[in-house]
Amino acid sequence: MKLYDDAIAPTPRRVRMFLAEKGVDIPRVPVTIGKGEHLAESYATRVPSRRVPALELDDGTVISESVAICRYIEALHPEPNLFGSTALEQARVEMWQRRMEFELLLPFANAFRHSHPKMAALENQVPAYAAAQKQLAEQRLAMLEGDLARHPFIAGDKFSIADITAFTTLAFFPRLVGIAIDERVPQVKQWFDRIAARPSAAA
Amino acid sequence: MKLYDDAIAPTPRRVRMFLAEKGVDIPRVPVTIGKGEHLAESYATRVPSRRVPALELDDGTVISESVAICRYIEALHPEPNLFGSTALEQARVEMWQRRMEFELLLPFANAFRHSHPKMAALENQVPAYAAAQKQLAEQRLAMLEGDLARHPFIAGDKFSIADITAFTTLAFFPRLVGIAIDERVPQVKQWFDRIAARPSAAA
Repeated sequence: MKLYDDAIAPTPRRVRMFLAEKGVDIPRVPVTIGKGEHLAESYATRVPSRRVPALELDDGTVISESVAICRYIEALHPEPNLFGSTALEQARVEMWQRRMEFELLLPFANAFRHSHPKMAALENQVPAYAAAQKQLAEQRLAMLEGDLARHPFIAGDKFSIADITAFTTLAFFPRLVGIAIDERVPQVKQWFDRIAARPSAAA
Repeated sequence: MKLYDDAIAPTPRRVRMFLAEKGVDIPRVPVTIGKGEHLAESYATRVPSRRVPALELDDGTVISESVAICRYIEALHPEPNLFGSTALEQARVEMWQRRMEFELLLPFANAFRHSHPKMAALENQVPAYAAAQKQLAEQRLAMLEGDLARHPFIAGDKFSIADITAFTTLAFFPRLVGIAIDERVPQVKQWFDRIAARPSAAA
Protein backbone atom coordinates (compact mmCIF):
# COMPACT_ATOMS: atom_id res chain seq x y z
CA MET A 1 0.00 0.00 0.00
CA LYS A 2 1.20 3.55 -0.60
CA LEU A 3 -0.24 6.98 0.00
CA TYR A 4 0.18 9.80 -2.52
CA ASP A 5 0.52 12.83 -0.29
CA ASP A 6 1.08 16.58 -0.37
CA ALA A 7 2.72 18.28 2.63
CA ILE A 8 0.86 21.60 2.45
CA ALA A 9 -2.78 21.12 1.41
CA PRO A 10 -5.37 20.58 4.18
CA THR A 11 -7.03 17.50 2.65
CA PRO A 12 -3.95 15.24 2.63
CA ARG A 13 -3.34 16.42 6.18
CA ARG A 14 -6.72 14.98 7.21
CA VAL A 15 -5.54 11.54 6.14
CA ARG A 16 -2.11 11.87 7.79
CA MET A 17 -3.74 12.95 11.05
CA PHE A 18 -6.24 10.10 10.84
CA LEU A 19 -3.46 7.56 10.29
CA ALA A 20 -1.44 9.00 13.19
CA GLU A 21 -4.44 8.74 15.54
CA LYS A 22 -4.84 5.11 14.45
CA GLY A 23 -1.13 4.37 14.79
CA VAL A 24 -1.08 3.12 11.20
CA ASP A 25 1.98 3.78 9.08
CA ILE A 26 1.75 3.72 5.26
CA PRO A 27 4.67 4.59 2.97
CA ARG A 28 4.13 7.98 1.38
CA VAL A 29 4.89 9.20 -2.12
CA PRO A 30 5.10 13.00 -2.23
CA VAL A 31 3.06 14.68 -5.01
CA THR A 32 3.56 18.43 -4.72
CA ILE A 33 0.37 20.18 -5.79
CA GLY A 34 2.10 23.58 -5.67
CA LYS A 35 4.45 22.38 -8.43
CA GLY A 36 1.58 20.86 -10.43
CA GLU A 37 2.92 17.33 -9.97
CA HIS A 38 -0.67 16.00 -9.66
CA LEU A 39 -1.31 17.14 -13.24
CA ALA A 40 1.57 15.13 -14.73
CA GLU A 41 0.66 12.23 -17.03
CA SER A 42 2.78 9.89 -14.91
CA TYR A 43 0.46 10.58 -11.96
CA ALA A 44 -2.72 10.23 -14.03
CA THR A 45 -1.68 6.72 -15.09
CA ARG A 46 -1.73 5.71 -11.38
CA VAL A 47 -4.54 8.02 -10.21
CA PRO A 48 -6.92 8.83 -13.11
CA SER A 49 -8.81 11.46 -11.07
CA ARG A 50 -5.47 13.26 -10.49
CA ARG A 51 -6.57 13.93 -6.92
CA VAL A 52 -4.28 14.05 -3.90
CA PRO A 53 -4.39 12.25 -1.51
CA ALA A 54 -4.86 8.81 -3.05
CA LEU A 55 -4.25 5.36 -1.62
CA GLU A 56 -2.81 2.74 -3.97
CA LEU A 57 -3.31 -0.87 -2.88
CA ASP A 58 -0.81 -3.59 -3.68
CA ASP A 59 -2.90 -4.80 -6.64
CA GLY A 60 -2.94 -1.29 -8.15
CA THR A 61 -6.49 -0.43 -7.01
CA VAL A 62 -6.70 3.25 -6.17
CA ILE A 63 -8.96 4.88 -3.59
CA SER A 64 -9.19 8.64 -3.79
CA GLU A 65 -11.25 11.06 -1.67
CA SER A 66 -9.73 11.58 1.79
CA VAL A 67 -12.76 10.36 3.73
CA ALA A 68 -13.01 7.21 1.59
CA ILE A 69 -9.36 6.48 2.44
CA CYS A 70 -10.09 7.04 6.13
CA ARG A 71 -13.11 4.69 6.03
CA TYR A 72 -10.97 2.01 4.40
CA ILE A 73 -8.39 2.34 7.17
CA GLU A 74 -11.13 2.26 9.84
CA ALA A 75 -12.51 -0.97 8.32
CA LEU A 76 -9.03 -2.58 8.44
CA HIS A 77 -8.12 -1.16 11.87
CA PRO A 78 -11.40 -0.58 13.73
CA GLU A 79 -9.91 0.71 17.00
CA PRO A 80 -9.49 3.37 18.21
CA ASN A 81 -12.61 4.16 16.17
CA LEU A 82 -12.83 7.65 14.68
CA PHE A 83 -16.20 7.20 12.95
CA GLY A 84 -18.02 6.09 16.13
CA SER A 85 -18.91 2.65 17.49
CA THR A 86 -22.66 2.23 18.14
CA ALA A 87 -25.27 2.98 15.46
CA LEU A 88 -26.18 6.24 17.17
CA GLU A 89 -22.56 7.32 17.66
CA GLN A 90 -21.80 6.60 14.01
CA ALA A 91 -24.81 8.68 12.99
CA ARG A 92 -23.72 11.55 15.22
CA VAL A 93 -20.16 11.51 13.87
CA GLU A 94 -21.50 11.47 10.31
CA MET A 95 -23.88 14.34 11.09
CA TRP A 96 -21.13 16.53 12.54
CA GLN A 97 -18.60 15.49 9.94
CA ARG A 98 -21.02 16.67 7.24
CA ARG A 99 -21.79 19.88 9.08
CA MET A 100 -18.07 20.63 9.30
CA GLU A 101 -17.59 19.85 5.60
CA PHE A 102 -20.58 21.65 4.15
CA GLU A 103 -20.96 24.49 6.63
CA LEU A 104 -17.34 25.19 7.68
CA LEU A 105 -14.85 23.74 5.19
CA LEU A 106 -16.78 24.67 2.04
CA PRO A 107 -17.36 28.37 2.83
CA PHE A 108 -13.74 28.79 3.96
CA ALA A 109 -12.43 26.98 0.88
CA ASN A 110 -14.75 28.91 -1.45
CA ALA A 111 -13.80 32.26 0.08
CA PHE A 112 -10.14 31.33 -0.46
CA ARG A 113 -10.53 29.98 -4.00
CA HIS A 114 -12.52 33.00 -5.13
CA SER A 115 -10.34 35.69 -3.54
CA HIS A 116 -6.72 34.63 -3.09
CA PRO A 117 -4.23 35.82 -5.76
CA LYS A 118 -2.59 32.37 -5.77
CA MET A 119 -5.86 30.79 -6.90
CA ALA A 120 -6.51 33.25 -9.74
CA ALA A 121 -4.95 30.97 -12.35
CA LEU A 122 -6.93 27.91 -11.22
CA GLU A 123 -10.34 29.38 -10.55
CA ASN A 124 -12.79 31.56 -12.43
CA GLN A 125 -12.82 33.95 -9.44
CA VAL A 126 -16.05 35.74 -8.50
CA PRO A 127 -15.27 38.37 -5.81
CA ALA A 128 -18.94 38.85 -4.78
CA TYR A 129 -19.16 35.14 -4.15
CA ALA A 130 -15.95 35.17 -2.12
CA ALA A 131 -17.38 37.93 0.09
CA ALA A 132 -20.67 36.07 0.65
CA GLN A 133 -18.82 32.85 1.50
CA LYS A 134 -16.49 34.64 3.92
CA GLN A 135 -19.58 35.92 5.73
CA LEU A 136 -20.97 32.36 5.94
CA ALA A 137 -17.64 31.12 7.29
CA GLU A 138 -17.74 33.78 10.01
CA GLN A 139 -21.32 32.90 10.91
CA ARG A 140 -20.49 29.19 11.19
CA LEU A 141 -17.49 30.00 13.36
CA ALA A 142 -19.77 31.93 15.73
CA MET A 143 -22.16 28.95 15.77
CA LEU A 144 -19.24 26.59 16.45
CA GLU A 145 -18.50 28.64 19.56
CA GLY A 146 -21.94 27.60 20.86
CA ASP A 147 -21.49 23.99 19.75
CA LEU A 148 -18.20 23.68 21.64
CA ALA A 149 -19.72 25.19 24.77
CA ARG A 150 -22.09 22.18 24.79
CA HIS A 151 -19.57 19.39 24.09
CA PRO A 152 -15.76 19.18 24.31
CA PHE A 153 -15.29 17.64 20.86
CA ILE A 154 -17.09 18.43 17.61
CA ALA A 155 -19.33 15.35 17.61
CA GLY A 156 -19.75 15.02 21.38
CA ASP A 157 -17.60 13.65 24.21
CA LYS A 158 -15.11 11.81 22.01
CA PHE A 159 -12.47 12.79 19.50
CA SER A 160 -13.57 11.79 15.97
CA ILE A 161 -12.92 12.44 12.31
CA ALA A 162 -15.18 15.50 12.63
CA ASP A 163 -12.48 17.09 14.83
CA ILE A 164 -9.88 16.32 12.18
CA THR A 165 -12.03 17.92 9.48
CA ALA A 166 -12.68 21.06 11.52
CA PHE A 167 -9.09 21.33 12.77
CA THR A 168 -7.40 20.97 9.37
CA THR A 169 -9.87 23.53 8.00
CA LEU A 170 -9.16 26.08 10.75
CA ALA A 171 -5.41 25.45 10.68
CA PHE A 172 -5.22 26.36 7.01
CA PHE A 173 -7.86 28.75 5.69
CA PRO A 174 -8.62 31.49 8.24
CA ARG A 175 -5.45 33.59 7.82
CA LEU A 176 -5.69 33.21 4.03
CA VAL A 177 -9.13 34.85 4.00
CA GLY A 178 -8.56 37.33 6.83
CA ILE A 179 -10.49 35.63 9.63
CA ALA A 180 -8.91 35.23 13.08
CA ILE A 181 -9.46 32.42 15.61
CA ASP A 182 -9.04 34.61 18.67
CA GLU A 183 -10.68 35.77 21.91
CA ARG A 184 -13.94 36.49 20.10
CA VAL A 185 -14.44 32.72 19.88
CA PRO A 186 -12.77 31.48 23.10
CA GLN A 187 -14.32 27.99 23.07
CA VAL A 188 -13.17 27.44 19.50
CA LYS A 189 -9.70 28.69 20.37
CA GLN A 190 -9.46 26.39 23.42
CA TRP A 191 -10.64 23.40 21.41
CA PHE A 192 -8.22 24.30 18.58
CA ASP A 193 -5.25 24.53 20.96
CA ARG A 194 -6.24 21.20 22.54
CA ILE A 195 -6.33 19.46 19.15
CA ALA A 196 -3.11 21.15 18.03
CA ALA A 197 -1.38 19.64 21.09
CA ARG A 198 -2.22 16.06 20.04
CA PRO A 199 0.78 14.25 18.55
CA SER A 200 -1.28 13.54 15.39
CA ALA A 201 -1.40 17.28 14.60
CA ALA A 202 2.30 17.10 13.73
CA ALA A 203 1.79 14.28 11.20
CA MET B 1 -39.07 6.85 15.57
CA LYS B 2 -40.38 9.46 13.15
CA LEU B 3 -39.04 11.12 10.06
CA TYR B 4 -39.59 14.82 9.36
CA ASP B 5 -40.01 14.88 5.61
CA ASP B 6 -40.70 17.24 2.69
CA ALA B 7 -42.33 15.84 -0.46
CA ILE B 8 -40.60 18.08 -3.03
CA ALA B 9 -36.95 18.72 -2.06
CA PRO B 10 -34.30 16.28 -3.36
CA THR B 11 -32.57 15.68 -0.01
CA PRO B 12 -35.57 14.21 1.85
CA ARG B 13 -36.18 12.10 -1.25
CA ARG B 14 -32.74 10.51 -0.79
CA VAL B 15 -33.82 9.22 2.61
CA ARG B 16 -37.24 7.99 1.39
CA MET B 17 -35.59 6.14 -1.48
CA PHE B 18 -32.98 4.65 0.86
CA LEU B 19 -35.69 3.43 3.27
CA ALA B 20 -37.72 1.95 0.38
CA GLU B 21 -34.67 0.04 -0.90
CA LYS B 22 -34.17 -1.29 2.63
CA GLY B 23 -37.85 -2.14 3.07
CA VAL B 24 -37.91 -0.06 6.24
CA ASP B 25 -41.03 1.92 7.08
CA ILE B 26 -40.85 4.91 9.44
CA PRO B 27 -43.84 7.15 10.21
CA ARG B 28 -43.43 10.50 8.48
CA VAL B 29 -44.29 13.98 9.67
CA PRO B 30 -44.61 16.39 6.73
CA VAL B 31 -42.68 19.67 7.06
CA THR B 32 -43.32 21.71 3.93
CA ILE B 33 -40.19 23.74 3.16
CA GLY B 34 -42.04 25.66 0.42
CA LYS B 35 -44.39 27.05 3.09
CA GLY B 36 -41.50 27.81 5.46
CA GLU B 37 -42.71 25.24 8.00
CA HIS B 38 -39.09 24.29 8.79
CA LEU B 39 -38.53 27.83 10.08
CA ALA B 40 -41.36 27.70 12.62
CA GLU B 41 -40.41 27.79 16.31
CA SER B 42 -42.40 24.59 16.90
CA TYR B 43 -40.05 22.77 14.51
CA ALA B 44 -36.91 24.30 16.01
CA THR B 45 -37.85 22.95 19.46
CA ARG B 46 -37.69 19.41 17.99
CA VAL B 47 -34.94 19.99 15.39
CA PRO B 48 -32.64 22.85 16.49
CA SER B 49 -30.80 22.91 13.14
CA ARG B 50 -34.21 23.45 11.41
CA ARG B 51 -33.07 21.06 8.69
CA VAL B 52 -35.31 18.67 6.77
CA PRO B 53 -35.12 15.68 6.73
CA ALA B 54 -34.54 14.80 10.39
CA LEU B 55 -35.02 11.55 12.26
CA GLU B 56 -36.42 11.77 15.79
CA LEU B 57 -35.76 8.71 17.95
CA ASP B 58 -38.21 7.60 20.64
CA ASP B 59 -36.12 9.28 23.37
CA GLY B 60 -36.22 12.61 21.53
CA THR B 61 -32.69 12.35 20.10
CA VAL B 62 -32.58 13.96 16.65
CA ILE B 63 -30.34 12.97 13.76
CA SER B 64 -30.23 15.44 10.91
CA GLU B 65 -28.23 15.29 7.65
CA SER B 66 -29.71 12.81 5.17
CA VAL B 67 -26.60 10.65 4.90
CA ALA B 68 -26.28 10.42 8.70
CA ILE B 69 -29.89 9.20 8.82
CA CYS B 70 -29.11 6.63 6.11
CA ARG B 71 -26.04 5.36 7.98
CA TYR B 72 -28.10 4.96 11.14
CA ILE B 73 -30.66 2.89 9.22
CA GLU B 74 -27.87 0.83 7.60
CA ALA B 75 -26.41 0.09 11.05
CA LEU B 76 -29.82 -1.10 12.32
CA HIS B 77 -30.71 -2.99 9.12
CA PRO B 78 -27.42 -3.99 7.47
CA GLU B 79 -28.91 -5.84 4.46
CA PRO B 80 -29.40 -5.18 1.64
CA ASN B 81 -26.34 -2.99 2.22
CA LEU B 82 -26.26 0.33 0.37
CA PHE B 83 -22.91 1.54 1.73
CA GLY B 84 -21.01 -1.60 0.62
CA SER B 85 -19.98 -4.74 2.51
CA THR B 86 -16.20 -5.38 2.39
CA ALA B 87 -13.67 -2.72 3.38
CA LEU B 88 -12.85 -2.06 -0.27
CA GLU B 89 -16.49 -1.91 -1.35
CA GLN B 90 -17.27 0.52 1.47
CA ALA B 91 -14.35 2.69 0.38
CA ARG B 92 -15.50 2.65 -3.25
CA VAL B 93 -19.07 3.58 -2.32
CA GLU B 94 -17.79 6.40 -0.13
CA MET B 95 -15.50 7.63 -2.92
CA TRP B 96 -18.32 7.72 -5.49
CA GLN B 97 -20.84 9.06 -3.05
CA ARG B 98 -18.52 11.98 -2.38
CA ARG B 99 -17.81 12.53 -6.06
CA MET B 100 -21.54 12.68 -6.71
CA GLU B 101 -22.05 15.10 -3.85
CA PHE B 102 -19.14 17.46 -4.41
CA GLU B 103 -18.82 17.25 -8.19
CA LEU B 104 -22.44 16.73 -9.33
CA LEU B 105 -24.93 17.73 -6.63
CA LEU B 106 -23.08 20.84 -5.47
CA PRO B 107 -22.60 22.51 -8.90
CA PHE B 108 -26.23 21.76 -9.86
CA ALA B 109 -27.52 23.03 -6.53
CA ASN B 110 -25.29 26.13 -6.66
CA ALA B 111 -26.34 26.94 -10.24
CA PHE B 112 -29.96 26.66 -9.10
CA ARG B 113 -29.58 28.67 -5.90
CA HIS B 114 -27.71 31.47 -7.62
CA SER B 115 -29.97 31.79 -10.69
CA HIS B 116 -33.54 30.67 -10.06
CA PRO B 117 -36.09 33.43 -9.33
CA LYS B 118 -37.62 31.28 -6.56
CA MET B 119 -34.31 31.32 -4.69
CA ALA B 120 -33.78 35.09 -4.91
CA ALA B 121 -35.31 35.73 -1.48
CA LEU B 122 -33.22 33.01 0.24
CA GLU B 123 -29.85 33.49 -1.41
CA ASN B 124 -27.50 36.40 -2.03
CA GLN B 125 -27.51 35.48 -5.76
CA VAL B 126 -24.31 35.94 -7.80
CA PRO B 127 -25.15 35.38 -11.51
CA ALA B 128 -21.50 34.97 -12.58
CA TYR B 129 -21.13 32.22 -10.02
CA ALA B 130 -24.32 30.52 -11.24
CA ALA B 131 -22.93 30.50 -14.80
CA ALA B 132 -19.58 29.03 -13.73
CA GLN B 133 -21.31 26.34 -11.66
CA LYS B 134 -23.66 25.44 -14.52
CA GLN B 135 -20.60 24.87 -16.67
CA LEU B 136 -19.08 22.59 -14.01
CA ALA B 137 -22.35 20.64 -13.80
CA GLU B 138 -22.31 20.12 -17.57
CA GLN B 139 -18.67 18.99 -17.46
CA ARG B 140 -19.38 16.49 -14.68
CA LEU B 141 -22.36 15.15 -16.62
CA ALA B 142 -20.11 14.52 -19.64
CA MET B 143 -17.63 12.75 -17.34
CA LEU B 144 -20.45 10.68 -15.82
CA GLU B 145 -21.20 9.47 -19.34
CA GLY B 146 -17.71 7.90 -19.36
CA ASP B 147 -18.05 6.56 -15.81
CA LEU B 148 -21.32 4.76 -16.67
CA ALA B 149 -19.79 3.26 -19.81
CA ARG B 150 -17.32 1.49 -17.47
CA HIS B 151 -19.76 0.25 -14.78
CA PRO B 152 -23.56 -0.17 -14.69
CA PHE B 153 -24.03 1.61 -11.37
CA ILE B 154 -22.31 4.72 -10.05
CA ALA B 155 -19.97 2.92 -7.64
CA GLY B 156 -19.49 -0.27 -9.69
CA ASP B 157 -21.54 -3.41 -10.28
CA LYS B 158 -23.99 -2.87 -7.45
CA PHE B 159 -26.72 -0.36 -6.65
CA SER B 160 -25.65 1.86 -3.73
CA ILE B 161 -26.36 5.13 -1.99
CA ALA B 162 -24.21 6.81 -4.64
CA ASP B 163 -26.91 5.96 -7.21
CA ILE B 164 -29.54 7.50 -4.94
CA THR B 165 -27.49 10.68 -4.58
CA ALA B 166 -26.91 11.02 -8.34
CA PHE B 167 -30.48 10.06 -9.24
CA THR B 168 -32.22 12.47 -6.87
CA THR B 169 -29.86 15.22 -8.09
CA LEU B 170 -30.60 14.57 -11.77
CA ALA B 171 -34.35 14.11 -11.18
CA PHE B 172 -34.60 17.58 -9.65
CA PHE B 173 -32.06 20.17 -10.78
CA PRO B 174 -31.36 19.84 -14.53
CA ARG B 175 -34.61 21.34 -15.87
CA LEU B 176 -34.41 24.13 -13.27
CA VAL B 177 -31.02 25.27 -14.60
CA GLY B 178 -31.63 24.51 -18.30
CA ILE B 179 -29.61 21.31 -18.69
CA ALA B 180 -31.11 18.28 -20.45
CA ILE B 181 -30.42 14.59 -19.78
CA ASP B 182 -30.87 13.48 -23.39
CA GLU B 183 -29.21 11.66 -26.30
CA ARG B 184 -26.00 13.67 -25.81
CA VAL B 185 -25.40 11.55 -22.68
CA PRO B 186 -26.97 8.19 -23.66
CA GLN B 187 -25.29 6.15 -20.90
CA VAL B 188 -26.48 8.59 -18.27
CA LYS B 189 -29.99 8.56 -19.72
CA GLN B 190 -30.11 4.74 -19.77
CA TRP B 191 -28.87 4.54 -16.21
CA PHE B 192 -31.35 7.25 -15.14
CA ASP B 193 -34.30 5.40 -16.72
CA ARG B 194 -33.17 2.16 -15.09
CA ILE B 195 -33.07 3.77 -11.63
CA ALA B 196 -36.36 5.60 -12.22
CA ALA B 197 -38.01 2.19 -12.89
CA ARG B 198 -37.06 0.86 -9.42
CA PRO B 199 -40.03 0.85 -7.02
CA SER B 200 -37.99 2.97 -4.57
CA ALA B 201 -38.00 5.89 -7.04
CA ALA B 202 -41.72 6.34 -6.31
CA ALA B 203 -41.16 6.64 -2.54
